[in-house]
Amino acid sequence: MTTNPTAAVLIIGSEILSGRTQDLNLQFIARELGEKGILLKEARVVPDVEVALVAAVKELSGNYSYVFATGGIGATHDDITVACVAKAFGRKIVMHEKALKSLEDYYREIPGGLTDIRRRMANVPEGAILLDNPLSGAPGFCVGNVYIMPGVPVIMQAMLKHFLPGLPGGPPVVSESVECPLPESFIADGLAEIQARYPDLDLGSYPRMKGTDFRTTLVAKGTDAAAVKKAAAEIAAMVERMLSKSA
Amino acid sequence: MTTNPTAAVLIIGSEILSGRTQDLNLQFIARELGEKGILLKEARVVPDVEVALVAAVKELSGNYSYVFATGGIGATHDDITVACVAKAFGRKIVMHEKALKSLEDYYREIPGGLTDIRRRMANVPEGAILLDNPLSGAPGFCVGNVYIMPGVPVIMQAMLKHFLPGLPGGPPVVSESVECPLPESFIADGLAEIQARYPDLDLGSYPRMKGTDFRTTLVAKGTDAAAVKKAAAEIAAMVERMLSKSA
Repeated sequence: MTTNPTAAVLIIGSEILSGRTQDLNLQFIARELGEKGILLKEARVVPDVEVALVAAVKELSGNYSYVFATGGIGATHDDITVACVAKAFGRKIVMHEKALKSLEDYYREIPGGLTDIRRRMANVPEGAILLDNPLSGAPGFCVGNVYIMPGVPVIMQAMLKHFLPGLPGGPPVVSESVECPLPESFIADGLAEIQARYPDLDLGSYPRMKGTDFRTTLVAKGTDAAAVKKAAAEIAAMVERMLSKSA
Repeated sequence: MTTNPTAAVLIIGSEILSGRTQDLNLQFIARELGEKGILLKEARVVPDVEVALVAAVKELSGNYSYVFATGGIGATHDDITVACVAKAFGRKIVMHEKALKSLEDYYREIPGGLTDIRRRMANVPEGAILLDNPLSGAPGFCVGNVYIMPGVPVIMQAMLKHFLPGLPGGPPVVSESVECPLPESFIADGLAEIQARYPDLDLGSYPRMKGTDFRTTLVAKGTDAAAVKKAAAEIAAMVERMLSKSA
């Protein structure tokens, strides 16, 4: 059926699980992957805890074509991503010469220069491929099918946009939305009937409240752009019929 | 050690994984659980796909004291949460009399009344306990240690606030933040040294970019409020020392 590669997003950060920080990385990565034709199948948020992180890296890298991870690659004691990815892949941690050079260049102009603490950010699992960091000195890295990026959104975004074009993708996932001023219960049967005729598309129904009323957004999504367009037109016609019935 | 119960959040929704929708439920639930002393250990986002959802419910309900799930309990074909939770727990799906009554009351005033489609929302796994929905007619439900809520944020929030006070919790998780106008690399060793003296607390370091500069928020977190306060004071003193050194 589909030839699109699959992916999981792994968000590493106790600050998301404590509610201190609103995650903003998942939605950005999800949209970029959709355009690239990489199907995002799962996302996980795990704390900065070795046993949880090693297990998640192993499981997700085994289940999907790619894992895109964010967070935990700074210089402090709670940044354990490098150690955990090394452990998950059974690799040693080594000082990466090119990463060290990049940090030397970056810290040349910065007070203190390349201290021992900053030098630690050149440590990567053996055999890792660096991911360029266009905004600051500390690179991300790739081990096997796992891509490790910083958690700071602007840096993550710049890094992803830099390396994602080079990865094998597939036909982009496209979608069309139809706004429906009725609650889901008016369109459920009509939508199911259209879904049955387009088994390769995902038709979704997303309710929201407007004051005390429910509205619904209906979405057709898939990698066959012509089928998406056709299904969306049928959904729009079905909504019109239900509107005139309920008027 | 700690007597706090643990939890996972399970977000059910292809619309989050496609990037169409920004999840807003995780942060709200995370904060409420922290106040209740329930330790959130993991969050997952899974699509509206049976095999993925059944597997996630089984694994998470086995690993944690509670699972709080949102999404997929409406009236459309992509709302498969009831069927999947029933399957995960090996239970039949039954019409819940009290849920049906609640839907009858709600739809009495609404055009069309209680249609067959709307009636489906009274289907729950056998033995499920209803979770009151203060805003609309469709209840959530609890099976075993899994609490299923709608994905619409205002409804989820009202429902959670309604039933969470009744669950066994633990000492609340409290945290104190110290703002640090320096990048992480200045405070990494000092923070690690304080962490070593407070093994029962989580000390976190969260960098962000301000223009081209890095700032850092340092957070002490745990269920021992006095220790959190003391550790935060030590962190603040350490930041002051580093600031005067770097000036």
